[in-house]
Amino acid sequence: MSASRVDGQKNCWIGFDLGGTKMIATVLDQNMKIIGRERKKTKGHEGVESVLERFVKTIRDALDDAKVDAARLAGIGVGCPGPLDLDRGVVVDAPNLGWKDVPLKAFLQKEFGCPAVIANDVDAGVFGEYRFGAGRDARCVVGVYPGTGIGGGCVYEGKILRGRKRSCMEIGHVQVVPYGSLCGCGQRGCLETVASRMSIAAEAAKAAYRGDAPHLMGSAGANLSNIRSGALAASIKAGDKMIEQIVREAAGRIGVAVASVVHLLAPDVVVLGGGLVEAMQDLFVNGVAKTANKHVMPSYIDSFRVVPCQLGDDSVLLGAAAWAREVIEA
Amino acid sequence: MSASRVDGQKNCWIGFDLGGTKMIATVLDQNMKIIGRERKKTKGHEGVESVLERFVKTIRDALDDAKVDAARLAGIGVGCPGPLDLDRGVVVDAPNLGWKDVPLKAFLQKEFGCPAVIANDVDAGVFGEYRFGAGRDARCVVGVYPGTGIGGGCVYEGKILRGRKRSCMEIGHVQVVPYGSLCGCGQRGCLETVASRMSIAAEAAKAAYRGDAPHLMGSAGANLSNIRSGALAASIKAGDKMIEQIVREAAGRIGVAVASVVHLLAPDVVVLGGGLVEAMQDLFVNGVAKTANKHVMPSYIDSFRVVPCQLGDDSVLLGAAAWAREVIEA
Repeated sequence: MSASRVDGQKNCWIGFDLGGTKMIATVLDQNMKIIGRERKKTKGHEGVESVLERFVKTIRDALDDAKVDAARLAGIGVGCPGPLDLDRGVVVDAPNLGWKDVPLKAFLQKEFGCPAVIANDVDAGVFGEYRFGAGRDARCVVGVYPGTGIGGGCVYEGKILRGRKRSCMEIGHVQVVPYGSLCGCGQRGCLETVASRMSIAAEAAKAAYRGDAPHLMGSAGANLSNIRSGALAASIKAGDKMIEQIVREAAGRIGVAVASVVHLLAPDVVVLGGGLVEAMQDLFVNGVAKTANKHVMPSYIDSFRVVPCQLGDDSVLLGAAAWAREVIEA
Repeated sequence: MSASRVDGQKNCWIGFDLGGTKMIATVLDQNMKIIGRERKKTKGHEGVESVLERFVKTIRDALDDAKVDAARLAGIGVGCPGPLDLDRGVVVDAPNLGWKDVPLKAFLQKEFGCPAVIANDVDAGVFGEYRFGAGRDARCVVGVYPGTGIGGGCVYEGKILRGRKRSCMEIGHVQVVPYGSLCGCGQRGCLETVASRMSIAAEAAKAAYRGDAPHLMGSAGANLSNIRSGALAASIKAGDKMIEQIVREAAGRIGVAVASVVHLLAPDVVVLGGGLVEAMQDLFVNGVAKTANKHVMPSYIDSFRVVPCQLGDDSVLLGAAAWAREVIEA
């Protein structure tokens, strides 16, 4: 058999999403179509060894689901939380997993005998949207994912923008309120302090407690742990005008930060994703688009589209696999 | 003679800086050393034809100075003010020159029979510092040039970051003061409104007028046209503490904007340049470094160096030529 025949057989890819609560593996064929999938709980509390074992099992089960032999893997792409050492492929610190300095790339390469690439999960998601979703064919895509914090990523001329060792595009920590509230990062007035789910929930809880959001008070009370995206969306639908205003305000703050990013990077497309956006898509997409356009110089008005992500959870899986292929085949 | 011999003769480059008051042409050899130079007044008021004629004459005189025949030109790089259409090589709007939609690239290519590349002058300057000066070998260099406005540019992995058609990195229009003063761009609270020479001069004029800056009042009075970088530096040296405080404050505002850029792009090097920085280098470099480090997340502290530009006016000339070579030889 010729070498090229053998190489030709290595034409499948793994896209992996490693989250704090669940892990998902997908098998993709050479056209980057998903042909197999498996999902397991992460169970970070059981320790690194145990999670890595389940990581491997999840990939093997997905390969079984796709009826693909591990020998056919051309590469593995993983979207991971937390600061990563991108080149060495090390998860430096992921509190949700209880991981510190875990050499994930080396581990996977040894286990499966193929190259592996790890990426920040937000970056992988933005790359997925760029290749297959809402940012298809754009020259520059910026992704903004308001959640517990606010994640950001950028694909510029086909590459994920990154720092020397780690990812960048920390839009959640762009200052939008000078001398503003304390942020978890130690700074003040970061976008996260006024537009993350946590800060929206805190404003909503105050409104509920003082009697301005009766529906939310009835469903979730004034407990931040219960005021999740779904509860906020439901209370707005039920008529809590104050909650709608709070969310609109948060979207507007994101719009102001997006305006700064537009002035710096001139993206064609701004993709919004995450639980909050999925639950209240129109409020976020329209709110960010309107405020961002209001806060850019005239020549940048309507120079970008603000769109919701199209791929949902698959964006990380597809993006991690496609980015791994991009890096490995470069 | 073989084709490669003929090609080999085309080994000189033009680096051109087109400014509102003066234009400078340099001839560079294959090692990008300057071997000839010429400088003329721009005289935009005499009209486009006249300026273009002088543009050509400046290049021809620089070639004479270098004793190089125009046939040996491999390419021409021009640093231009104002919004440009980078790919078509058109100066879209340069009020200082009185130019609108001038197809400079096509004109030069026809005139000299070699490829031409136009770049935003700030971008060219940052590229010059990246290749030959303060940002040498950095993976990501961000340049900030406080002047009448505040220019910005970024070289990321060897390329000038740009928008779809035009340049980007408008750091002067990043919002740093919500609901702040009106900016010339129509927005409010842009960095330019608190840290450009114009805004520093306005604060200084107020201080002079109310008697808090006697030296400045004696030298420049309260007239913004006279309160230039040199006058500010001289008044500080002479003991105007209030002016020093005003400049320090402005540098701090730039530091806050730089912190946001660090969160987004994770540069290795931040280069500061322009007349204000040249006149008061320590105040600006130390002020920006201190405030930027104070406003980034712990993991970004000291992840970047803030340095003054090294090449002065030559940065645009060298950068324009080197960028043209980069684009043409790609």
